[in-house]
Amino acid sequence: MKEIKAVLKDSEIPKQWYNISVDLPTPLNPPLHPGTGEPLTPDLLEPIFPMSLIEQEVSSERFIDIPEEVLEKLLIWRPTPLVRAYRLEKALNTPAKIYYKNEGVSPPGSHKPNTAVAQAYYNKKAGVKRITTETGAGQWGSALSFACSLFGLECKVYMVKISYDQKPYRRLMMNTWGAECVPSPSNDTEAGRKILKEFPDSPGSLGIAISEAVEDAVSRDDTKYSLGSVLNHVLLHQTIVGQEAMKQMELFGDYPDIIIGCAGGGSNFAGLAFPFARDKINGKDIKIIACEPTSCPTMTKGPFVYDFGDTAQLTPLLPMHSLGHDFVPPPIHAGGLRYHGMAPLISQLIIDGIIEPRAIPQLESFEAGIMWARTEGSIPAPETNHAIAAVIQEAKKAAEEKKEKVILINWSGHGIIDMAAYDAFFSGKLTDYALPEEQIKEALAKIDALPKPKMGK
Amino acid sequence: MKEIKAVLKDSEIPKQWYNISVDLPTPLNPPLHPGTGEPLTPDLLEPIFPMSLIEQEVSSERFIDIPEEVLEKLLIWRPTPLVRAYRLEKALNTPAKIYYKNEGVSPPGSHKPNTAVAQAYYNKKAGVKRITTETGAGQWGSALSFACSLFGLECKVYMVKISYDQKPYRRLMMNTWGAECVPSPSNDTEAGRKILKEFPDSPGSLGIAISEAVEDAVSRDDTKYSLGSVLNHVLLHQTIVGQEAMKQMELFGDYPDIIIGCAGGGSNFAGLAFPFARDKINGKDIKIIACEPTSCPTMTKGPFVYDFGDTAQLTPLLPMHSLGHDFVPPPIHAGGLRYHGMAPLISQLIIDGIIEPRAIPQLESFEAGIMWARTEGSIPAPETNHAIAAVIQEAKKAAEEKKEKVILINWSGHGIIDMAAYDAFFSGKLTDYALPEEQIKEALAKIDALPKPKMGK
Repeated sequence: MKEIKAVLKDSEIPKQWYNISVDLPTPLNPPLHPGTGEPLTPDLLEPIFPMSLIEQEVSSERFIDIPEEVLEKLLIWRPTPLVRAYRLEKALNTPAKIYYKNEGVSPPGSHKPNTAVAQAYYNKKAGVKRITTETGAGQWGSALSFACSLFGLECKVYMVKISYDQKPYRRLMMNTWGAECVPSPSNDTEAGRKILKEFPDSPGSLGIAISEAVEDAVSRDDTKYSLGSVLNHVLLHQTIVGQEAMKQMELFGDYPDIIIGCAGGGSNFAGLAFPFARDKINGKDIKIIACEPTSCPTMTKGPFVYDFGDTAQLTPLLPMHSLGHDFVPPPIHAGGLRYHGMAPLISQLIIDGIIEPRAIPQLESFEAGIMWARTEGSIPAPETNHAIAAVIQEAKKAAEEKKEKVILINWSGHGIIDMAAYDAFFSGKLTDYALPEEQIKEALAKIDALPKPKMGK
Repeated sequence: MKEIKAVLKDSEIPKQWYNISVDLPTPLNPPLHPGTGEPLTPDLLEPIFPMSLIEQEVSSERFIDIPEEVLEKLLIWRPTPLVRAYRLEKALNTPAKIYYKNEGVSPPGSHKPNTAVAQAYYNKKAGVKRITTETGAGQWGSALSFACSLFGLECKVYMVKISYDQKPYRRLMMNTWGAECVPSPSNDTEAGRKILKEFPDSPGSLGIAISEAVEDAVSRDDTKYSLGSVLNHVLLHQTIVGQEAMKQMELFGDYPDIIIGCAGGGSNFAGLAFPFARDKINGKDIKIIACEPTSCPTMTKGPFVYDFGDTAQLTPLLPMHSLGHDFVPPPIHAGGLRYHGMAPLISQLIIDGIIEPRAIPQLESFEAGIMWARTEGSIPAPETNHAIAAVIQEAKKAAEEKKEKVILINWSGHGIIDMAAYDAFFSGKLTDYALPEEQIKEALAKIDALPKPKMGK
């Protein structure tokens, strides 16, 4: 009987996060004030985030200690298993070795609580009583609700109305963890009321929900706002994934030639990839692939620019690959990958040639996910299917080239509350959404006038 | 930082199942032929089950080797974590130590695949190409679909129509694993067509679905039938849970005073409890509590009798606690606990005083589950909530008595595809279903004329 998993004990959980910003070949361009266009000073973020998180956002420490109280909560599901996908390898008849880091074992079912728990902790420590956030498909909202329940914090989630109506299970998970979840636009904020007055039937959008959550946070002394991806401190908290994976690959006596993850805002991808990317920056030969949908090709077709994080232009300007803050992606089923921008850290590493983006068509992603379920057993989230499709591409290439490549993928979450997506696939209702170049052009036109970041090497 | 989990390596997975029937204080009464009332000979089961499983059903070996090919598949999610519930203990302010065995980490989300994988293997080995089964809420149907996909077997699931319509996610999981799932009554069998002709709008029942699945299996040479609970060989396959838990309790340096599980047909409860029950039979002082809903009080109000496993009276007569094969439990949300009978092995151990049954009201079970979610993190299945309610009762009692009791529970599955049940609870639509004594009496009257089993000690 072969061992297929590398398991770490509780005591072996990594005790520090890895901050890649100090090792970047080109330093990050600073975020800019949305009004003045000047570099943002940390104090301007204080009404929104606790100071400890703002400090992490700009930290120049390579390793940052994970507080004891955060580790305690992470132990609920971490360290997560690293598993060799023998059955998939066999089905593909490939000499490649495929390993996956299973982040689907957390209570909300994805990697998201890695940062939710840390953010809830720092807010609690800063005396915050209540956290607001927005959520689209609901993964992030449920992860933050879970984390807040562990620290006894109130949590209010503004959920894009169309998802609120279509995905009742996610909302009910939030309720079960004690959070309040309202459809956005809501009557609870100025921003929401304004939209509702003009468009009573508005299906909502992430942009609107962000506006509501931020307005709520800044209007109350006891409340801060929390974001589930894109920002440096969020990616930082996810690096525990890659640090664990490094120890576990050692237990297998292997080191990856190829690292693969899906990227919407970029946090699960960064979490696995950054600790290995450090080795690549220091000279190691690794291919690091970030997968996005062809229908929302932020990294493969979006330029590296300064752009807003939201449609309403409320956030700071961030240096990132972007399709323009007005870009509305087609209604694909991987909701977590429908974002116009990409984390600045990942964007910069693409520019510097450390990370390689790849676009995956929707139908190929579902075919890959179903092959995974029928060989490795677990049903992947629609987002994760994009990474699996790239794994299959690389494993087939290894077979053609007769090379024993070692592939490592972040299996970012399970899909068992996304079965409607599989239903759409089985019943032939899904397409690849050929994206008109016009649509991208139009959205990009909106960011022409914004400041330009330095490109780096 | 305290360790909260005991983790076993792949190589430490138990290599044998424990067969409690050889250690029973009173030997099992034999199953009887439904027509003649004579003890059933194994060969009569051959059209339905492969011989290897029939042999396990009547085996007199205390330990039975788990085949290598079964272990390989179990490793996908096993060994499962054993976790100390520190946060629940704290919330209850109890001196009791609470441990839980997390069976929710399997791909279908419950303990069910422990036997599904074994049954699929033995069928495959016997040359069977196709397996049929019935499913109510869908946990068992999805577990068997998952197992069949791992062994390349066809699988057809007859799903009670009302659940088929109300729980599309479960059905879609089966499809994703390549299984066919049809609403029962269906047009695919004589039994189904007969019902449909008379009652075109029949919502179906487990009894009808069993009839369809069995008819399908016996009418085709390449097909056998599979059952997810009640029978000896099914409970046998679940004992890997308790065997792992024994090793893990040792790692914590503890031994349980109280063992708790929920019981519908009895398989998850037996899986955890039987290896410890052996110690109790040999003189150890342990309390072993099997929890059922007050609305389906099989063990607490049903007599120990010979009864049919199904409404249609097709199955052998089994010696068990039963509310009568015509008893229709109220529509509570713990679908897996809505069964009129109880596994013969568990029933006999209740008669012999080894196992103690306890009935839990529905509302108390959901309150317990929500407390669990907000302390320990994971959202439990409605079935599991019944066991959690008993844990809370025992932990409070330990607090009153100021005793440091060690409590161990089988956390049999997660509830994230049962969120509709939580919705009903939150919106005040759930009740405790006070069960009219008349209804039980009427159902019991139907079994008055059947043979009586010996009671034992």
